[in-house]
Amino acid sequence: MNTNEYYINYLTEQSVGVEAMLKRRMSEITSDVPPQIAEAMEYSLMAGGKRLRPIMLAEAARSCGLKNITDTEIYASAIEMIHTSSLIHDDLPAMDNDDLRRGKPTSHKVFGEAMAILAGDALLNHANEIMARHVSENTEPRFAKAAYAITKATGISGMIGGQTIDILAEKAGLDIASEELLVKMYSMKTCALLEGAVAAGAYIAGADESVVNKWRKYALYIGLAFQIVDDILDVVGNESVLGKPIGSDSENNKPTFVTLMGLDGAREYAEKYTDMAKSIACELGNAEFFLWLADYLCKRDR
Amino acid sequence: MNTNEYYINYLTEQSVGVEAMLKRRMSEITSDVPPQIAEAMEYSLMAGGKRLRPIMLAEAARSCGLKNITDTEIYASAIEMIHTSSLIHDDLPAMDNDDLRRGKPTSHKVFGEAMAILAGDALLNHANEIMARHVSENTEPRFAKAAYAITKATGISGMIGGQTIDILAEKAGLDIASEELLVKMYSMKTCALLEGAVAAGAYIAGADESVVNKWRKYALYIGLAFQIVDDILDVVGNESVLGKPIGSDSENNKPTFVTLMGLDGAREYAEKYTDMAKSIACELGNAEFFLWLADYLCKRDR
Repeated sequence: MNTNEYYINYLTEQSVGVEAMLKRRMSEITSDVPPQIAEAMEYSLMAGGKRLRPIMLAEAARSCGLKNITDTEIYASAIEMIHTSSLIHDDLPAMDNDDLRRGKPTSHKVFGEAMAILAGDALLNHANEIMARHVSENTEPRFAKAAYAITKATGISGMIGGQTIDILAEKAGLDIASEELLVKMYSMKTCALLEGAVAAGAYIAGADESVVNKWRKYALYIGLAFQIVDDILDVVGNESVLGKPIGSDSENNKPTFVTLMGLDGAREYAEKYTDMAKSIACELGNAEFFLWLADYLCKRDR
Repeated sequence: MNTNEYYINYLTEQSVGVEAMLKRRMSEITSDVPPQIAEAMEYSLMAGGKRLRPIMLAEAARSCGLKNITDTEIYASAIEMIHTSSLIHDDLPAMDNDDLRRGKPTSHKVFGEAMAILAGDALLNHANEIMARHVSENTEPRFAKAAYAITKATGISGMIGGQTIDILAEKAGLDIASEELLVKMYSMKTCALLEGAVAAGAYIAGADESVVNKWRKYALYIGLAFQIVDDILDVVGNESVLGKPIGSDSENNKPTFVTLMGLDGAREYAEKYTDMAKSIACELGNAEFFLWLADYLCKRDR
C-alpha cells in the first residue's frame, strides 16, 4: 500500500468514525424533543459527505499532541452540525433552490420548506447548545476558546457573512466579479469554518495563539483551493461521480474562478493555493496527513 | 403616581435602556462584516417590541442581589437577538407568511427571502458568538451556566421544538388540538425563552439551582398566561393598538385556547396561570416588579 492509498483508507476510516459519533449525538437527544425535528436534523446530518471539518478538527488536535482525542468529540460534532445547517438553508427555494444534495433529495423536498428552515435553525443552535453545555461542565479555558473559535467562524464575519456576499454577488451577476471579491467570498463562506475546525482542535490540544494562527493559514489556503476546484468541477465534473448536476454556476450567472479566468487560470490558482498550504504544513510538524490532504483535495473529482 | 404608573414608567425606561444596549452591540460589529447583513439584522432588532426577555433577565439578576448589572448585558442582548431571529423566520412565506410585524414590513418584505433567512441565521449565531466570547474571556462558571441556559432554552427542547409543534399542529388543524398539546406547545415555543432569561439572570447573580428552578416556574406560568392573552387578543384585540391584523389564527385554522374553550374559558386560564406566577413571585423575595408584571401582562391590550 503506497502513501496515497494509506491516507485514503485512513480518511474513510475517520469518516466512518465521525458518522458513528454523529449517531451518538443524535441518540442523546432527549424524549421531550418533537421526533419530527430530530428526524429532519438526522436526515441531513447522516446524508454523507466528506466529513472534512470534524476530521480536520480531530487531526489538528492530534498533530498538536492531544492524547485524549475524545476531548474533541463535542466540538467535531458541532462543526458538522453547523456545516449541515448551512447546506439545508443554502438549498432552499429562496436561496440556491437545489432539489438534490449528494444524490439525495434536499431537506425541503422531503419535509417541506417550513420544516427545512426549522431543521437548519435546530442544527445551528444544537451545535452551540452541546458546546455551551460542555463548556459549562468543563471550565478549562481551552474548551471555551474552541467554542468561540467555531461560533465566530460560523457567524457574520465568517460563513454567514460569506453566504451574504454570495447571494448579493449572484443577484448582481458577473458584472461585479473580481478576483478580490471572489477570494473574500470564499475566505468567509468556505475557509472560515475550516479555519474554525483546525483552530478549535489546536486550542483543545493546548496550542498557543502563534501556532493556532499557522493552522488557520493552512486552512485558509486549502479552503481557497477547495472552492476553486469546486468551480472547475461544476464545468468539467462527472455528474454521476459528483452526485449533483453540473453547470449550475453558469445557469445561475454565478461569478466563479472559471468564469473569471478560464479553466487553465483557475487550475493554476488551485495549485498555487495548494502549494502555499503545503509549505505551511511543513512548518507545523507532525502534519504529514495535512500535507497529503492538500494535494488530495486539489486533485479530487467529487 | 400609583404603583401601576410607577412600574409602567419603569418598564418604558428599561426598554429604552435595552434599545441603547442593542445599538451598542450592533456598533461593535467589525468592518469586515458585509454591511448588508448587519443592516438586515439591525432592521429587525431595532423594530420595537416589549423587550420583555432582556428586561426580565436583568431584573431577575437584580432580585437575586447582583450589584454590577453590566454583567448581564451580553446575555440580555443575546436573548433579544435570538427572539428576533425567531420572529424573522416565523414571518417567512413558508412559515406564517406575515407582511407586517409591529406595524412595520417584515424582513423578507424589505430585504427579500434569501436575506431574511440569512438575517435570522445571523442573529441566532451572533447571540451565541457574543456569549461564547464573553465566556472565553470570563471563566467564572456563572457566565457559562447563563450561556447554556439560554442556548438550551432556544433549542429543540425549547423554542425551536415548540415552533416545530406549532407548524405540525397548523398543518393538522383543529382536529388534534387538546389542552395538553397547547400547553406543551406554548411551554416550549414561548415559555422556554422566558425561563432561559430569568434562569440566566439568576445564574449570573450567583443563585443556586433551587432558586433558579423557582424562577423558571414563575416564567413558565407568566409565559402560559401571556400566550393565552395573545390568543384572546387575536379575536377581540384592536388592530391599530396591536399593530397587526386580528383573526389570523382562525384564518390559519390554528388551534388556540380560544378555539378550544371559548373566550371566557381562555380568560379563566390566563387568570389561573397569572395567580400561579404571583404566588411563586411572593416566595422569591425582592420580586415586587415580577408580582406587578404578571398582572400587567395578563391585562394588556397589545
